[in-house]
Amino acid sequence: MKKAVVLLSGGLDSTTALYLAKEQGFEVYSISFNYGQRHNKELECAKNIAEKAGVKQHIVVNTNMDAWGGSALTDESIEVPEGDENRKDIPVTYVPARNMIFLAYAASYAEVVGAQDVFIGVSQVDYSGYVDCREEFIKAMENAINMGTVCAVEQGRKIKIHAPFMFMTKTQEIELGMKLGVDYSDTWTCYKGDELPCGECDSCLLRIKAFEEAGFQDPLQYKK
Amino acid sequence: MKKAVVLLSGGLDSTTALYLAKEQGFEVYSISFNYGQRHNKELECAKNIAEKAGVKQHIVVNTNMDAWGGSALTDESIEVPEGDENRKDIPVTYVPARNMIFLAYAASYAEVVGAQDVFIGVSQVDYSGYVDCREEFIKAMENAINMGTVCAVEQGRKIKIHAPFMFMTKTQEIELGMKLGVDYSDTWTCYKGDELPCGECDSCLLRIKAFEEAGFQDPLQYKK
Repeated sequence: MKKAVVLLSGGLDSTTALYLAKEQGFEVYSISFNYGQRHNKELECAKNIAEKAGVKQHIVVNTNMDAWGGSALTDESIEVPEGDENRKDIPVTYVPARNMIFLAYAASYAEVVGAQDVFIGVSQVDYSGYVDCREEFIKAMENAINMGTVCAVEQGRKIKIHAPFMFMTKTQEIELGMKLGVDYSDTWTCYKGDELPCGECDSCLLRIKAFEEAGFQDPLQYKK
Repeated sequence: MKKAVVLLSGGLDSTTALYLAKEQGFEVYSISFNYGQRHNKELECAKNIAEKAGVKQHIVVNTNMDAWGGSALTDESIEVPEGDENRKDIPVTYVPARNMIFLAYAASYAEVVGAQDVFIGVSQVDYSGYVDCREEFIKAMENAINMGTVCAVEQGRKIKIHAPFMFMTKTQEIELGMKLGVDYSDTWTCYKGDELPCGECDSCLLRIKAFEEAGFQDPLQYKK
């Protein structure tokens, strides 16, 4: 059975990516990151999702990306802003080089378990200023991985990064996920970690709008 | 003053790189990794070296790369082998994608502090099967960093990775370090973490030989 490493945050995108990898016949090794984000809701969701999906192994990397702050997601002194659908500048929720760090770990994990495929749920369509969600970056990172791992350089086992939603809207992604049987009540999207999602941050707004457009009921209950 | 992030393990190479960055007029931000390696000797050395060199900020990233093992440096069940100067295969001390992970963190740190220069003490000459020490990889990673950070993509502040020892032997590096005033008694090279360096592992053997060839006395005392 082909093996794949799936970056699993517990959010909507990565969960859909996990189901897609399974549908494509991969044995899944999932990886989550406890990187000093404001809350652990997503991490709990990720663990539960991995278990329900029957992954071969689920790993949580602990790391202190909050040591140097720089983002509202890791720095308690920066507030998560109210949502703004027309935001044009780089949001303060941007975590510098986050996907690069995540993909580097995924490459290491893939090399150890013998996987040649890595799935990441990024999209260039809704990327909101997160430059590490663009195809150009993913291709550059795939190239770096294939220059910097023994499996690729010495053993002819190149690693491919799959970013299946790169050119899909979130609406299209949800439509696909519903076909794949994803239970979106298992996922967490809100930037904040309260009992119920806030319904007001950029992340909640994008999700709510996408469910509406896809014509499905979002199974989550929102505070507002 | 120009800022540079220096990957500082506390070993001979990274310490020489730190002194070189200072000599070139950079204000230094050093970064070390506590990644589940077998011992903390290097980390203690790194902290001490950073302090003595008067860096602006020294950061230690804690992360559990030992979660999936795969290397004698992070997996207690794999023994560090006796040294072999003629080793041709990939040594078990190879940590998959380690420099990729380190450089990704360095990029994140650089973006936050506003540095455009990153120093890493790798060499392709003595690389002993560590494919992530080759120039091809460093160039590929530099490209990925410049595709995946806001400073490079949106703000025109590209990041350059300096690997000044890429084509130097360790002997040449020590000659340079002595000119720069590096105190090599502050550094730790042995793969093991005993009170004295073993003098027998690959890493010790390379160091001992290089000091002999450079015609300097290694200030460290060895067990054997």
